[in-house]
Amino acid sequence: MIKVGIIGATGYAGAELVRILLNHPEAEIVWYGSKSYIDQNYADIYRNFFELVDADCLGDNMEELAQKVDVIFTATPQGFLAGVLTEEILKNTKIVDLSADYRIKDVATYEKWYGITHKSPQFIEEAVYGLCEINRGLIHENTRLIANPGCYTTCSILTAYPLVKEGLIDPDTLIVDAKSGTSGAGRGAKTPNLFCEVNESIKAYGVTNHRHTPEIEEQLGYAAGKEIRINFTPHLVPMNRGILATEYATLTKKVTYDEVKAVYDKYYANEKFVRVLPKGVCPETKWVEGSNYVDVNFVIDERTNRIVMMGALDNLVKGAAGQAVQNMNLLFGLAEDTGLKLVPCFP
Amino acid sequence: MIKVGIIGATGYAGAELVRILLNHPEAEIVWYGSKSYIDQNYADIYRNFFELVDADCLGDNMEELAQKVDVIFTATPQGFLAGVLTEEILKNTKIVDLSADYRIKDVATYEKWYGITHKSPQFIEEAVYGLCEINRGLIHENTRLIANPGCYTTCSILTAYPLVKEGLIDPDTLIVDAKSGTSGAGRGAKTPNLFCEVNESIKAYGVTNHRHTPEIEEQLGYAAGKEIRINFTPHLVPMNRGILATEYATLTKKVTYDEVKAVYDKYYANEKFVRVLPKGVCPETKWVEGSNYVDVNFVIDERTNRIVMMGALDNLVKGAAGQAVQNMNLLFGLAEDTGLKLVPCFP
Amino acid sequence: MIKVGIIGATGYAGAELVRILLNHPEAEIVWYGSKSYIDQNYADIYRNFFELVDADCLGDNMEELAQKVDVIFTATPQGFLAGVLTEEILKNTKIVDLSADYRIKDVATYEKWYGITHKSPQFIEEAVYGLCEINRGLIHENTRLIANPGCYTTCSILTAYPLVKEGLIDPDTLIVDAKSGTSGAGRGAKTPNLFCEVNESIKAYGVTNHRHTPEIEEQLGYAAGKEIRINFTPHLVPMNRGILATEYATLTKKVTYDEVKAVYDKYYANEKFVRVLPKGVCPETKWVEGSNYVDVNFVIDERTNRIVMMGALDNLVKGAAGQAVQNMNLLFGLAEDTGLKLVPCFP
Amino acid sequence: MIKVGIIGATGYAGAELVRILLNHPEAEIVWYGSKSYIDQNYADIYRNFFELVDADCLGDNMEELAQKVDVIFTATPQGFLAGVLTEEILKNTKIVDLSADYRIKDVATYEKWYGITHKSPQFIEEAVYGLCEINRGLIHENTRLIANPGCYTTCSILTAYPLVKEGLIDPDTLIVDAKSGTSGAGRGAKTPNLFCEVNESIKAYGVTNHRHTPEIEEQLGYAAGKEIRINFTPHLVPMNRGILATEYATLTKKVTYDEVKAVYDKYYANEKFVRVLPKGVCPETKWVEGSNYVDVNFVIDERTNRIVMMGALDNLVKGAAGQAVQNMNLLFGLAEDTGLKLVPCFP
Repeated sequence: MIKVGIIGATGYAGAELVRILLNHPEAEIVWYGSKSYIDQNYADIYRNFFELVDADCLGDNMEELAQKVDVIFTATPQGFLAGVLTEEILKNTKIVDLSADYRIKDVATYEKWYGITHKSPQFIEEAVYGLCEINRGLIHENTRLIANPGCYTTCSILTAYPLVKEGLIDPDTLIVDAKSGTSGAGRGAKTPNLFCEVNESIKAYGVTNHRHTPEIEEQLGYAAGKEIRINFTPHLVPMNRGILATEYATLTKKVTYDEVKAVYDKYYANEKFVRVLPKGVCPETKWVEGSNYVDVNFVIDERTNRIVMMGALDNLVKGAAGQAVQNMNLLFGLAEDTGLKLVPCFP
Repeated sequence: MIKVGIIGATGYAGAELVRILLNHPEAEIVWYGSKSYIDQNYADIYRNFFELVDADCLGDNMEELAQKVDVIFTATPQGFLAGVLTEEILKNTKIVDLSADYRIKDVATYEKWYGITHKSPQFIEEAVYGLCEINRGLIHENTRLIANPGCYTTCSILTAYPLVKEGLIDPDTLIVDAKSGTSGAGRGAKTPNLFCEVNESIKAYGVTNHRHTPEIEEQLGYAAGKEIRINFTPHLVPMNRGILATEYATLTKKVTYDEVKAVYDKYYANEKFVRVLPKGVCPETKWVEGSNYVDVNFVIDERTNRIVMMGALDNLVKGAAGQAVQNMNLLFGLAEDTGLKLVPCFP
Repeated sequence: MIKVGIIGATGYAGAELVRILLNHPEAEIVWYGSKSYIDQNYADIYRNFFELVDADCLGDNMEELAQKVDVIFTATPQGFLAGVLTEEILKNTKIVDLSADYRIKDVATYEKWYGITHKSPQFIEEAVYGLCEINRGLIHENTRLIANPGCYTTCSILTAYPLVKEGLIDPDTLIVDAKSGTSGAGRGAKTPNLFCEVNESIKAYGVTNHRHTPEIEEQLGYAAGKEIRINFTPHLVPMNRGILATEYATLTKKVTYDEVKAVYDKYYANEKFVRVLPKGVCPETKWVEGSNYVDVNFVIDERTNRIVMMGALDNLVKGAAGQAVQNMNLLFGLAEDTGLKLVPCFP
Repeated sequence: MIKVGIIGATGYAGAELVRILLNHPEAEIVWYGSKSYIDQNYADIYRNFFELVDADCLGDNMEELAQKVDVIFTATPQGFLAGVLTEEILKNTKIVDLSADYRIKDVATYEKWYGITHKSPQFIEEAVYGLCEINRGLIHENTRLIANPGCYTTCSILTAYPLVKEGLIDPDTLIVDAKSGTSGAGRGAKTPNLFCEVNESIKAYGVTNHRHTPEIEEQLGYAAGKEIRINFTPHLVPMNRGILATEYATLTKKVTYDEVKAVYDKYYANEKFVRVLPKGVCPETKWVEGSNYVDVNFVIDERTNRIVMMGALDNLVKGAAGQAVQNMNLLFGLAEDTGLKLVPCFP
């Protein structure tokens, strides 16, 4: 059994890790880290786990934890892991970091968009960007540090990746209009996230300056083979879970539905967790809820020579905890879908 | 492997059976019955099953189906099974009926509350009322016909059962005020179930005449050892899943919290799927969503000499498909929680 | 024009006062009091008022305010008004208090249920309990202090009042199961009121000890002509606005629908803001949203000799700000519905 | 008093007309037309109007109706009005048509996007496109036929109009990503609009072929002085009311925030119903709910040389009934905001 520690176990992503790992046949959680709720019973914080988890919350001493577990998931605020990570820790354990600390290779870019100084840039190069469908080959039993992709990012990238990679769209025309459920905002007690503020409303936020922008640009830039600049606009939707990305780009040449479909299939036909929907079917976040799937599809607009791409995932699963477990499976040589055969829950 | 047929696979309860059985290690679905969608691909009706189910919808020929499968789940309108059931069918297969046709032992009561003539009353006596926590002992490998309890009923009964059984409350003072998510209303296209009609509103319905009333009265009557009359009022809540029952009754004697707790524990301490919450914690439907749990608790009101009991479950799982699978497990001698280790999904 | 000051203008009830008073032909708001947002532009706090309100938030100096306005609405936490009220203030202005400070005539009862010491019990006797449909005759141009009823209370009382008053039900058997939208919880940033915690869930709270209990008991006790003890259970519903009270009581004699209807009509046929619905129609909170109406109805259950009464209102309007304005109208000799011809908004 | 007839009074837009007109000081509804509910009491269909409307539903005989009223609102399916309109009718009454029948000047375009033959193209030229803020000058007491704009269209056009008109953006780069509440889908009983299908989900629909596309293109084309082609993608959001349009376009030259703000102010500073929000504030549909406002704002993205424009309105008010009343006011020489001083309802 893989011994697992979670730092930030009382955030929504942390709790989702618990939900998934409780049914993982090869892993057991031995450390529920939560500085805010230290010494409190974990199931008192998340009563869905009553009689399922019998443990108290522990602190965030990474050095101690690293000696006790095979892998640590850090579902922590930006800057936490960068501030405490040491070579010593990485010698003792693997880390899957759900924060942004090691996602962006260029430190200056990280520091500009996040507005904080990176405390341990020396580990950035080593970190593997854990978008499994693209970087699977880089993740193996010797890998020590995974930068688990952001929720918006995972959705945005996977939706457009095949077309960027194959040069079918001009990446500098890419516009990503994304819509997220409210769990993406976390469990912090803030007025704008109150039920009455979110319910019966929709709004954009972080317009032109959301932190997932450079992450999308970097990864799709690799696919494009050049630096790119995109527009990314997130929106808050009155629902708990789910991200839908609607993406627009100009086609580089005249293509048919079948040609584009073939390109998507080239990359995704054998991917368990990416489902290219049948022609004419638009992804709905509900169809992937609770599962590790990303559903994608597209419509060509001959009138404007653009293509509209759409992708949907559950922000807490494929957008966070599910992908983190997928990475863990790769790190330990397990089948990639171990513990992830989650059937979407409808309605 | 247990071969399973589902009649009514395209209703919400039918789809939930599919969701659960896809991860059941000892069962496989070989018949997705749906008269309305015959010959259509099942995953086109419920796209959450895209790439998970590859089958077309079949009809509702029970005689044919009985020869092919080990168990049939009928998630069908009231009267369907009673209209087609034969001894021949029951010789060939087991049936777990999610409708009300065999739940009520007294035909006249059934016919009065449901307003239809019962077509095969000869099977009523044989049918076992499949509330596993109470009738487990009656369900075994020779049982042929299970009347799977209603959603409101399961919640209402389990919440009050220990106190009725032990005589702590006067059952004729019992008032059940129940609140249900909208999936309980089914997938039929009716104006009152449209999003804009349900959202941002709450209402009672079926006041004094809801069909689950006699079912609750019959079962709690067995526990009380006499006929009882209760009030049951269901409400429609703007959420997808979940039932909360708030129940009121007069205490028959002065009792303490610990005494009542001991009574609940007597019946439920060893029940995997019934969780008696810690003192002072009120059940929330969210804490059981997607799982087979019922969460219960109570508060004694010394001022009025009443007790307020509360129970919460997921109407599609413990209130329908989950309990049906629990019954299937008993019918085939499997561990009762096989395929039902569903962790509640929060948020 | 009546000059109005609001203390607590940035809570939900305060903002609803603003929404209503902006269209009131005889009143103008001259003081938007909000200690938390002092000197901030009011429309920056509630952007729905952008270009409608051009004023900065002021403090809560009641003495100063009393000299400037004809009436003060205090939409403040329990204990605030009791802590600052003086004879001097009441000589200068009228007060409609939306808190509980002067609702309960017995100080000991107040102090027990609210857990605070009442700082100015000398004004309790003078205060008129502003449930206009019942106490209209006590409110006139000499009245100085109105205790505006609670949201649950208004709904609970008006739903049962005629039957208690006429002795058709035994008030000691009364059980009020109430369901409220989340705006009743206020705008404070607390984890349990976050969107993801409330959405897709329902729960009871304050079971047997909610503070509106003694208020209901006192007022219905006056109607009954004796002290009564009831059960009151509030529930949190995933919607913004609305309260539904489902009430159960034992009938004191055999009655017909028409007889009970006649009793309701006796009290409410001429009441503009209480609508007794047609036979068989259950109140829905949506049908009163945004308006000052209370919709009521009932069903007799001959089987149990009980009656089920139901009432619905908008907790921020008839349950708070609307009723406060109704009281203001009475205080200044205006037609009671001035500024309150609000048509319910559906959907 | 203006005598008003409504055809389609039992759809959501029709009911919103009723809500608004009940408080209109110069209008009275004398005909509630609804073929589906003929002879039924209107308040039985929409119980929010109980005791507010006392009338039975009548049919859709436009010739008869035209002789009885000063203005007819047709809130009817596409093709209805085109199929019955005659010169005789227009001689007797004015018409504000909430359908698309006379919005598009080019019949071929209408017939292609709507897939129906236009039965009375002879009236198209006469019809005034009733986007009041732009075409106010064309609407006066001699005008007979108003084509009331679509909900998405009103929002999409007003959000971008000043920048298109002033040539600050290249209209052929315009991408409109729009999100709508579910009332836009109407009250028809269809499975995809059931609560459980819409709730907790978001999806795009009508991708590249939604019928509001040519309407936006035509009107913004007039502003641009040339034919344009845009992308328009609507999305279904789990809320009752509200449309948010997020719009992207390439700037034609380097501009500052102040320069763009000045352009918006040039067109909207004196517009009561268009609110240009303060710098940095993104429109939220909640802030306009129930009112006739459109809130707009923008963010310049220097990185990509694009501008992100955002607009929010209530689809049933400014997107349908409110704008229709605004047009009626112009038709009868009333102040444009008569009966439209609706304060947004929050929360």
